[in-house]
Amino acid sequence: MPYGDAMNARVRSEERRAEIVRAALEVIAERGYRGASLGAVAERVGLTQQGLLHYFPTKDALLVAVLQERDQWDAVPNTRWRMDLLASLVEYNAMRPGIIQTFSALLGESVTEGHPAREYFTERYVQVRANMAEMLRAEYGDRLPNGLTPERTAPLLVAVMDGLQYQWLLDPESVDMPGAFRDFLSLLGERREETD
Amino acid sequence: MPYGDAMNARVRSEERRAEIVRAALEVIAERGYRGASLGAVAERVGLTQQGLLHYFPTKDALLVAVLQERDQWDAVPNTRWRMDLLASLVEYNAMRPGIIQTFSALLGESVTEGHPAREYFTERYVQVRANMAEMLRAEYGDRLPNGLTPERTAPLLVAVMDGLQYQWLLDPESVDMPGAFRDFLSLLGERREETD
Repeated sequence: MPYGDAMNARVRSEERRAEIVRAALEVIAERGYRGASLGAVAERVGLTQQGLLHYFPTKDALLVAVLQERDQWDAVPNTRWRMDLLASLVEYNAMRPGIIQTFSALLGESVTEGHPAREYFTERYVQVRANMAEMLRAEYGDRLPNGLTPERTAPLLVAVMDGLQYQWLLDPESVDMPGAFRDFLSLLGERREETD
Repeated sequence: MPYGDAMNARVRSEERRAEIVRAALEVIAERGYRGASLGAVAERVGLTQQGLLHYFPTKDALLVAVLQERDQWDAVPNTRWRMDLLASLVEYNAMRPGIIQTFSALLGESVTEGHPAREYFTERYVQVRANMAEMLRAEYGDRLPNGLTPERTAPLLVAVMDGLQYQWLLDPESVDMPGAFRDFLSLLGERREETD
């Protein structure tokens, strides 16, 4: 095969993989991971199940690709997290309910026994709490105006983001997710009476 | 059948139903609702699947009983919610990871398409947000010290409780759920500089 053709084949293969990952995201949003079948993903991209196995030999291998895709969205290359970027991320999330649904469903499942995404989420939260603590320290120093340390505040920040997503997915008309998150950020900036 | 025997039969039947619901809670904690099978629940209580269907004719009927059980735990009869009761509830939850796992898994699944618990959770959150707003108003009046209304604070309170449960279930060694929740309650009591 000439060099150009090999390149084309590789590009086509990567495009196909990306297409399969997108289909998997949709199927997981609809049915959860345990409820998702490789057959349903294959059908959505016009492959046989055997054809799909050429790209992802197991359902768990496909899940790994889905979770890697997730990591890419959060990454802010060459940039540290800032409070205003975080508020913008929540605004952006409110425009992509499908993706948020995929990962809220996966997070929920991950706490069940032996779930293949459990380790991923456990490690991810250790990292996310550390990143958020670093961001809070850059903004406020070693104590927030209310006296809490960045390390004690970080789990609350992460919890509010996740918890609001469930309320918003269930009832988007009643829950203003970005507004509620901005309210929470404003709480963090409040000062104690005795300090300035 | 004499009256006493009929009573005994009814008591036995209710005990059996309660036993089945407890088994269902366990199976959902382990596998989620979509991953749970009536066969697995039947096996855990020593019934055939046919025997189980005598008590709960469908899997969804069993789910309804599970969700009713959940409602009973939250109910504080003849008492309004108070902030200190809520902190105690979170302390209590930290001693029953199995139950919290069941409902965190169900909440996660409920955002997927056509899930039978979706309506339950949607309605439940409308009610819980209203209860929390009422509690905050009883504690702080029409504005919290930080200036937010009880209605704008309620979704944050609920989000923190739910979000902390996921972090804690995934990593109980790293996450002090009751301590983090108390930190959040203390944030709510902080005052703005310009007010007293």
